[in-house]
Amino acid sequence: MKAQLGGDEGKPKFVLKTPKGTRDYGPKQMAIRERVFSAIISCFKRHGAEVIDTPVFELKETLTGKYGEDSKLIYDLKDQGGELLSLRYDLTVSCHSLMAMNKITNIKRYHIAKVYRRDNPAMTRGRYREFYQCDFDIAGQFDPMIPDAECLKIVHEILSDLQLGDFVIKVILGFSVPWWEAVPWEEVRSEMVGEKGLSPEAADRIGEYVQLHGGLDLIERLLQDPKLSQNKLAKEGLGDMKLLFEYLTLFGITGKISFDLSLARGLDYYTGVIFEAVLLQQENEHVEELVGVGSVAGGGRYDGLVGMFDPKGRKVPCVGVSIGIERIFSILEQRLEASEEKIRTTETQVLVASAQKKLLEERLKLISELWDAGIKAEMLYKKNPKLLNQLQYCEDTGIPLVAIVGEQELKDGVIKLRIVATREEVNIRRESLVEEIRRRTSQP
Amino acid sequence: MKAQLGGDEGKPKFVLKTPKGTRDYGPKQMAIRERVFSAIISCFKRHGAEVIDTPVFELKETLTGKYGEDSKLIYDLKDQGGELLSLRYDLTVSCHSLMAMNKITNIKRYHIAKVYRRDNPAMTRGRYREFYQCDFDIAGQFDPMIPDAECLKIVHEILSDLQLGDFVIKVILGFSVPWWEAVPWEEVRSEMVGEKGLSPEAADRIGEYVQLHGGLDLIERLLQDPKLSQNKLAKEGLGDMKLLFEYLTLFGITGKISFDLSLARGLDYYTGVIFEAVLLQQENEHVEELVGVGSVAGGGRYDGLVGMFDPKGRKVPCVGVSIGIERIFSILEQRLEASEEKIRTTETQVLVASAQKKLLEERLKLISELWDAGIKAEMLYKKNPKLLNQLQYCEDTGIPLVAIVGEQELKDGVIKLRIVATREEVNIRRESLVEEIRRRTSQP
Repeated sequence: MKAQLGGDEGKPKFVLKTPKGTRDYGPKQMAIRERVFSAIISCFKRHGAEVIDTPVFELKETLTGKYGEDSKLIYDLKDQGGELLSLRYDLTVSCHSLMAMNKITNIKRYHIAKVYRRDNPAMTRGRYREFYQCDFDIAGQFDPMIPDAECLKIVHEILSDLQLGDFVIKVILGFSVPWWEAVPWEEVRSEMVGEKGLSPEAADRIGEYVQLHGGLDLIERLLQDPKLSQNKLAKEGLGDMKLLFEYLTLFGITGKISFDLSLARGLDYYTGVIFEAVLLQQENEHVEELVGVGSVAGGGRYDGLVGMFDPKGRKVPCVGVSIGIERIFSILEQRLEASEEKIRTTETQVLVASAQKKLLEERLKLISELWDAGIKAEMLYKKNPKLLNQLQYCEDTGIPLVAIVGEQELKDGVIKLRIVATREEVNIRRESLVEEIRRRTSQP
Repeated sequence: MKAQLGGDEGKPKFVLKTPKGTRDYGPKQMAIRERVFSAIISCFKRHGAEVIDTPVFELKETLTGKYGEDSKLIYDLKDQGGELLSLRYDLTVSCHSLMAMNKITNIKRYHIAKVYRRDNPAMTRGRYREFYQCDFDIAGQFDPMIPDAECLKIVHEILSDLQLGDFVIKVILGFSVPWWEAVPWEEVRSEMVGEKGLSPEAADRIGEYVQLHGGLDLIERLLQDPKLSQNKLAKEGLGDMKLLFEYLTLFGITGKISFDLSLARGLDYYTGVIFEAVLLQQENEHVEELVGVGSVAGGGRYDGLVGMFDPKGRKVPCVGVSIGIERIFSILEQRLEASEEKIRTTETQVLVASAQKKLLEERLKLISELWDAGIKAEMLYKKNPKLLNQLQYCEDTGIPLVAIVGEQELKDGVIKLRIVATREEVNIRRESLVEEIRRRTSQP
């Protein structure tokens, strides 16, 4: 094996690097990731969601024709005999095939996994070829706007919990296309006038509203507009929007939600609400840093999609949220770098140390007791470490407490507990040590 | 898009299936997975480990020549221009390249991720083409046997916590080859006598011991054997083993650990301990079910490996554990199926329900209060659901409590809390509801 790896000295012949557009995640990046995942997943679980997962590759034919021009960005696997495979391009297709395969018509679930695109990477802006997507969906036949309102509540909870700064969730009436295909107003207007036969005046009237945003008051105003309310679809949509804002009021989150007409879509058929969460400029952050990372979550209703995979073409109503998890990682990584705040990469509560020599056995006994009681504990792997080195290790890694084993203390049946931040030391009876460590390291 | 997906009726043209050797994970499988991950990860964190991750594919040249005959099992990506890539075959290579790239010489870390092998799948026995590996390693220059003992403690904690049944951890003296390359005794003997020039008698004496297993007593006996102790390597190894068992005694885990000579290796150079955890036959389980799933964790010392990737060939001492996470999933899935025990796929603590009509707004208000207080709560997405349907939903999904909103209760400032298992109902003052739900759903 050694020989295979590169000659006599065991030196490697190849250059060590990760593939283009990818990176390794060291403990610091992972600590940020875990913080984000934990906030998001605990929110999804608070709302009763199940979780699913799918293979990282799919049959090539499952993906064929689904992404148009973007198909060239799909990673194909080499034909090594057997099936032709591709790496998953997004989570939508695999999730919906899963649902159709299992004839699932009623599910509240989330899926967090990596997807792959042979795109031009822009790694400083958080654009990679391997990246996470994070989707939450509620599928099933329900009374209008109740699950839609819950999706907005979820985005509100996650963004508040992550403390990314001030944000607004724009809610848009969704016509014609799924929420991930945004269309500029000019295009919508020419389609309305050309293909749909709307009068230019009516289209322009809609165009005026495109500039507007607000809450229940705006919706009421639009509902009273005689020109708009002649349009059956617009009336239906505005009625739903009113219902939605009433529910959001009960959830107490309308303060961060804005009914917005700036991203209008075509009028082919009404599919329901669309929303997008945007971070607002922070006072003490540079504009450049936030360019391209304003939008951190999106979602809405996409009722048609599951039917495409169902052998009988059955449609399942579906409303979903997609959290822009890579953007959130980028923002938090940049902030952390700027702040020079130290991030802990472990959760260790206490270091088991000794002040004198020949106490390795006692340290092993104590740390074993702590582990068995569920305490997160470490010790240095030295027979006789210096106390200074042990304290330095705590400073370096952010361990808040030191349990110091000493000969006199052992005789007295106590352990000396040192609080690293204040250098305070207290003798704790051994039988109370676990409780004391828990008390001093419990989250406020 | 609809047209692209398969004709007028939106019916798909292709067959929906996952690629050979892979499967989707529905909520039930994921619930088992999460239980296993949670036990393992909380153990790693209790021991102060950091976590890392690496891309799912690597430069093909990084993998070339590392796996000998098995190289044909590597999934290559298609050459679409640019770098030639392969899917990761195990976590060892990517982790050690990460360490070498970042010149890490001192780390305690775990890595849980999927790896890919174009092997013959045996899915009923838990062998897939896409599967998880779960590695924990301690790397660095330390005093002998302290991190090695911690690795065994970790395996002991994880297997106890997962309640897989009785187990034994066999500890073996590792000579010559890394722990993942097991060699049968006959081969070792002929190598000893042939290449290494050991007398057939000495080799046979070792062969006698190969049948033995035990604890500190056996180690002492071997150390006192004059023929064995003439061999410098054997003496060194047995000395380390004695130290290890002393530490394991302090950890209180020797009851499940057996010093075992049945898997001897060559005598090229001594690399340290090797261990393997094996589940013991359960009384009420069929033999067939456990065939091939006896071994659930393995590990040991592999000091040479990082050097292979380091430009200067520096070696980093390393001891590690690999948890057979897919085998554990299989065992738990089979057991669950056999027991007909219902597994919950959500963690919802309470369903917010109503007994009368026109209480949707009150349900929305209450559930929002509960979510904001961190309670896991669901409601049916119906304007006026029947109480029976709401109670049935709790039965089906295992939700233990129902918070019932009623007109009279609202006037009185109380919520009726129903305990699903006992059908008991108690009125709780609204301001005490969160506390009461927490109290009744806290883990014992």
